[in-house]
Amino acid sequence: MSLENISCQKSFGGWHKRYRHQSKVLGCDMVFAVYLPPQAEQGAKLPVLYWLSGLTCNDENFMQKAGAQRLAAELGLIIVAPDTSPRGEQVPADPDGAWDFGLGAGFYLNATQQPWAQHYRMHDYVVEELPALVEAHFPASDQRSISGHSMGGHGALVCALRNPGCYQSVSAFSPICNPMDCPWGEKAFSRYLGEDRARWREWDASVLLAETPAGQCPPLLIEQGDRDDFLATQLKPEALEQAARKAGHTLTLRLQPGYDHSYYFIASFIDDHLRHHAAALGRL
Amino acid sequence: MSLENISCQKSFGGWHKRYRHQSKVLGCDMVFAVYLPPQAEQGAKLPVLYWLSGLTCNDENFMQKAGAQRLAAELGLIIVAPDTSPRGEQVPADPDGAWDFGLGAGFYLNATQQPWAQHYRMHDYVVEELPALVEAHFPASDQRSISGHSMGGHGALVCALRNPGCYQSVSAFSPICNPMDCPWGEKAFSRYLGEDRARWREWDASVLLAETPAGQCPPLLIEQGDRDDFLATQLKPEALEQAARKAGHTLTLRLQPGYDHSYYFIASFIDDHLRHHAAALGRL
Repeated sequence: MSLENISCQKSFGGWHKRYRHQSKVLGCDMVFAVYLPPQAEQGAKLPVLYWLSGLTCNDENFMQKAGAQRLAAELGLIIVAPDTSPRGEQVPADPDGAWDFGLGAGFYLNATQQPWAQHYRMHDYVVEELPALVEAHFPASDQRSISGHSMGGHGALVCALRNPGCYQSVSAFSPICNPMDCPWGEKAFSRYLGEDRARWREWDASVLLAETPAGQCPPLLIEQGDRDDFLATQLKPEALEQAARKAGHTLTLRLQPGYDHSYYFIASFIDDHLRHHAAALGRL
Repeated sequence: MSLENISCQKSFGGWHKRYRHQSKVLGCDMVFAVYLPPQAEQGAKLPVLYWLSGLTCNDENFMQKAGAQRLAAELGLIIVAPDTSPRGEQVPADPDGAWDFGLGAGFYLNATQQPWAQHYRMHDYVVEELPALVEAHFPASDQRSISGHSMGGHGALVCALRNPGCYQSVSAFSPICNPMDCPWGEKAFSRYLGEDRARWREWDASVLLAETPAGQCPPLLIEQGDRDDFLATQLKPEALEQAARKAGHTLTLRLQPGYDHSYYFIASFIDDHLRHHAAALGRL
């Protein structure tokens, strides 16, 4: 597995770097970004926080707008931000050019339906191929945590809940908590997974959390703005809360008054999430 | 003077807001952004840091990428970010569509040559019209500081040096220090100001600093990356250093090893600049 470095910028004493590589899982070239804190040059292996972005994003949005590198540099956390879908001419896109399905909208699942099944396997890319690559090429330990925003918040929750023991902690900003029961999720799942709703349950954080045995859920922090335009129709954190209650999990869900769905919201609270993960990863 | 609010986002307990207004000075509609820290809702008037962005930018780049709002919220600083040129269909653009002249490249001066002289008056907009507007509509005191990046670093220095007493402090990231003697500056000045180089001296920070009497320069902090691709050909901080030495000014010029011209560089050191300004503005 070879990596082509496409940019390299010093940031808070560490380095923000972007790489292109051939993804076997996705069958296309992919770009991801990594933030290496200053401690990465000192020999020891550092834990990794994976960040999954939302609809229409790529690897750049979080790195440019979240303001996470300041505290990551202090805590000694590597951050890895993948793209949000497979990319390239051979990858099928939404026939109507929609922004909420297809390119930029992989939903972090493994598609089973044609023409999507060949390339749209973002779950396996994020959980298997990308960490293997990161741990082979950077001073990264196998201690991982995961977070994300909106569609990426859904992705972070689902990756953590489907793979017990794989992530030391999980958090999300404005996640799509119950995709089976909202327009974004129903559109994506019906196309990627087919019309049989029983198969959708494997990719729905609220269903997965309700089925996770007590004590087997990693520390879970959810941040949600109460002036988020998508809150009632698409995000539905109450479904996740209900699932946590039902299964006896501790869920920290913080409803932040006045905040919307933007990166200004993420930036305002990213430090708390970095500390949440650093504590689980032994960096606090 | 009326303001039309076009967006409003909570950020670090305060508000990031964008406004459109009719600029008399520029003869067109302009958009600017303001960050109001949480203290703005408590009645007292707060000092204002004006941020001038670089080539191709508008009011959004700094607000999204610099990570300045976290500490501004703590210090109680208002930040105002104007656009980088007049805008609109009636405003002449570079005939070849260049990115380093015309739209997005007003160079914070008052043009004297046609067809630029009617609209390209960014100096008067930044120094006079915009502060009057800000101080009339927001809980802003008349205590001002100014900073900027690249072309905007040049703008911050020139605005401060041409208007003694107007700004309590000035700083710049990677400023064009000697525009009379670099390709970006020569192109812009010859068109906006004509071929008589004697008139260019009024808009060149190194010339102005050399002519400023000792003790009459506000506290001055310059940040420069040593892996900045534009350092040797366009930015020339050594000219500013020489001018400071000649005129007996204290100039803090920090050459940061490994950093480039990007917002990752700005974000890495913005906190030091905010503290530099906060100290001069009585907020430290």
